[in-house]
Amino acid sequence: MAEEFDVIVIGAGPAGENVAARAVRGGLSAAIVEERLAGGECSYWACIPSKALLRPVDLAGEVSRVPGLSLGPIDVDAVLARRDEAVSHYDDSGQVGWIGSVPAEFVRGRGRLDGERRVVVTTADGGERTLTARHAVVLATGSTAAVPPVPGMAEAKPWTSHEVTAAKKVPESLIVIGGGVVACEMAQAMHGLGARHTTVLVRGGGLLGRVEPFAGELLAKSFAESGIDVRTHTDVVRVERPEPGGTVTVHLSEGQPLEADELLVATGRRVATRGIGLDTVGLPDDAPVEVDDSMRATGVAGGWLYAVGDVNGRALLTHMGKYQARICGDVIAARAHGDDLPAMRDIADGFGAPQVVFTDPQVCAVGRTEAEARKAGFRVRAVEYDLGSVSGAYLLGDGYRGRAKAVVDEDRKVLLGVTFVGPGVGDLLHAATIAVTGEVPLDRLWHAVPSFPTVSEIWLRLLETYGL
Amino acid sequence: MAEEFDVIVIGAGPAGENVAARAVRGGLSAAIVEERLAGGECSYWACIPSKALLRPVDLAGEVSRVPGLSLGPIDVDAVLARRDEAVSHYDDSGQVGWIGSVPAEFVRGRGRLDGERRVVVTTADGGERTLTARHAVVLATGSTAAVPPVPGMAEAKPWTSHEVTAAKKVPESLIVIGGGVVACEMAQAMHGLGARHTTVLVRGGGLLGRVEPFAGELLAKSFAESGIDVRTHTDVVRVERPEPGGTVTVHLSEGQPLEADELLVATGRRVATRGIGLDTVGLPDDAPVEVDDSMRATGVAGGWLYAVGDVNGRALLTHMGKYQARICGDVIAARAHGDDLPAMRDIADGFGAPQVVFTDPQVCAVGRTEAEARKAGFRVRAVEYDLGSVSGAYLLGDGYRGRAKAVVDEDRKVLLGVTFVGPGVGDLLHAATIAVTGEVPLDRLWHAVPSFPTVSEIWLRLLETYGL
Repeated sequence: MAEEFDVIVIGAGPAGENVAARAVRGGLSAAIVEERLAGGECSYWACIPSKALLRPVDLAGEVSRVPGLSLGPIDVDAVLARRDEAVSHYDDSGQVGWIGSVPAEFVRGRGRLDGERRVVVTTADGGERTLTARHAVVLATGSTAAVPPVPGMAEAKPWTSHEVTAAKKVPESLIVIGGGVVACEMAQAMHGLGARHTTVLVRGGGLLGRVEPFAGELLAKSFAESGIDVRTHTDVVRVERPEPGGTVTVHLSEGQPLEADELLVATGRRVATRGIGLDTVGLPDDAPVEVDDSMRATGVAGGWLYAVGDVNGRALLTHMGKYQARICGDVIAARAHGDDLPAMRDIADGFGAPQVVFTDPQVCAVGRTEAEARKAGFRVRAVEYDLGSVSGAYLLGDGYRGRAKAVVDEDRKVLLGVTFVGPGVGDLLHAATIAVTGEVPLDRLWHAVPSFPTVSEIWLRLLETYGL
Repeated sequence: MAEEFDVIVIGAGPAGENVAARAVRGGLSAAIVEERLAGGECSYWACIPSKALLRPVDLAGEVSRVPGLSLGPIDVDAVLARRDEAVSHYDDSGQVGWIGSVPAEFVRGRGRLDGERRVVVTTADGGERTLTARHAVVLATGSTAAVPPVPGMAEAKPWTSHEVTAAKKVPESLIVIGGGVVACEMAQAMHGLGARHTTVLVRGGGLLGRVEPFAGELLAKSFAESGIDVRTHTDVVRVERPEPGGTVTVHLSEGQPLEADELLVATGRRVATRGIGLDTVGLPDDAPVEVDDSMRATGVAGGWLYAVGDVNGRALLTHMGKYQARICGDVIAARAHGDDLPAMRDIADGFGAPQVVFTDPQVCAVGRTEAEARKAGFRVRAVEYDLGSVSGAYLLGDGYRGRAKAVVDEDRKVLLGVTFVGPGVGDLLHAATIAVTGEVPLDRLWHAVPSFPTVSEIWLRLLETYGL
């Protein structure tokens, strides 16, 4: 007999958990189905462990810029031990307990859609449970690392984000394929923790292709100075690893092959929708689930299917998934009670999602790049300023290097986008996120005085450069 | 013969410099008179050197919380050397050059008002120059440390902010009188740099009396744990220092006298208006110069006198002085051209000036405290959240401890004040400053998504705690 809930969520990552919590807060019952660990990719194999690995490397960089301080060698075992603690030793009992406290029902197993409002869960012992939803089914199955179909790649069993964040030791030499966030963060973490020979192979012309070009350039400069070998315009044609766990050889379309102890593939993500039964509700399998701004899947009769987080392809970022989840959970609860809650819609993705890359220098941005803003038809003026020239940055250490850029909508005199690059700038971003999302007019922003001598004084410099 | 300028500024601190720069940008000529170093208290004996001294101590604290990192002893000489570099070795030729580039005339000497639009400058060689202003005279003479009239105090020649930030060696033992920003910052800097026996004597019940009470409590806890001895409700009745530079003895109204190698008095500031000729224009001598929101002195016929920065008593903060200076310079230029520039008025001080205290934990706040908001008659709801419970804070190190509070205007649903206490939170503040000053409604702030896993996720937690 089918078990019935108001809402069934497939996937217990941060997005799935938040949908359930908000729906329950709205008076509904909820079940969350998860095949692996409650807490999801973010908690065990992405954001959390990667930042735990990066923090000591980042801090060592800060210390190196402050005269009078000297650091001993990094105790890598201690760093890995704290990483293990940060991921709760890959034990999700805390998260399962939290789900219980919502309260929501936690169902361990692989969930798949089986027609309208129906979810079939295959449990570890091969059994099946059928759940039906009175109001909504929410897909929150996330994404997995995409591994390009290069000959020999699959056989070489390369690291992806999953394995590198869970590394039990740091290889002496590492080849990283990719130039995006995961590639950059993990190249720097592993290099800082002892991967003396770290090579980053980028297909395009630089690092971090989606942000303002100067960001990738400053990061590449930092990589070069620290001894990370970045090679642009590379094309990996073949990979060899004759012995499992042994040396891996990467053949490029040009030049000598490269060898290393380990290979990390970080060339993007694919939504995890294969085999979750999208075909049973008339949607294409193995594709992102298109949603409207309430997170409801488009093209599904009855409007009972929702998708939040990576799986809808809007923004592959934990915080955006959680944001969508809050909207989704609230909207489902409201609709169950006959309301539509029109104020609760995803507007943040439209402004441009904020993101922090935890490299050294950190790269963070919100809203549109100048190029994106121009392409979207805005009448744009952009201003830039050298972050190292701000007193607050100088006081953080010798040779502080960074840059900031603001993109202004000249018609409405509001900010369309802001980018900061520099050591430790990650927590500067939220000011920009509020300014962009709040559409605070420049002539009011002018009265928001940054405290001296913080790095935030960059705001004053940007506005002065603009002419205010 | 008198030399004539459109604007004459007395005091070349950051506020004075900014007035001149803005007035010149507005098409006027300007002279800046300074008796000591161009750049002012902030550049040589306050913000800049204090932060240069605090940075390694602060960073050492951060390192101590990150497993896998270990720091050698701090090289105090290197720290003092960087402090010397940060203050340009007390050489203001860079600043004088900057003033020349504005371009403005730099006049070295002691300036005093001598009736309407007239400034007499006494130069080092005892000569006098008389300057007259076509449009405005601006007072920007700042403030000096107030030393309480305790018997023996003056004779003991205690350190004030001036001497402690310029210290050539760190005393083994230090007594600090005061519990405000300077006292707390310098107690921690000196203690961290080697003043093993550091005692802070506070007249009231705790540290940092002007911010939310939990801030001083968390700081006091940190002081206690690090071995700084904080004594509250103390009353210093007498000070003895028989030999210049020798041991100093501090007698309290109760209990045993205390001895130390050095004594720092940090019990407040007094505006530096004594003897600057206020009496020649009908204003009381040795008092703050009251101004309107355009920084024009009230009660002076003709409206030609202005005052910016500490001297007007609005907010003894460099960044607020600079803010007032931008307004003042722009308004003077506009008025010279027959405009009044009504949009350019000080509104930030009305919201409540932002401030960062660079202790460990850092304390930062903007707007009103809950008590201030209630007293001002707002219908208030306040929410608090444990900063250490935010993932981004946990990832910064073990035992991260902090707290945040938001004060909401329940009628308008905007933030009246925000306080953050925790290691490294200083650059979180500007987000709050924009939210408070921009009066961004809570239901729009809700869509400003903090990036995961930054400490800024405290914003999400505060809004959730509020019920959004």
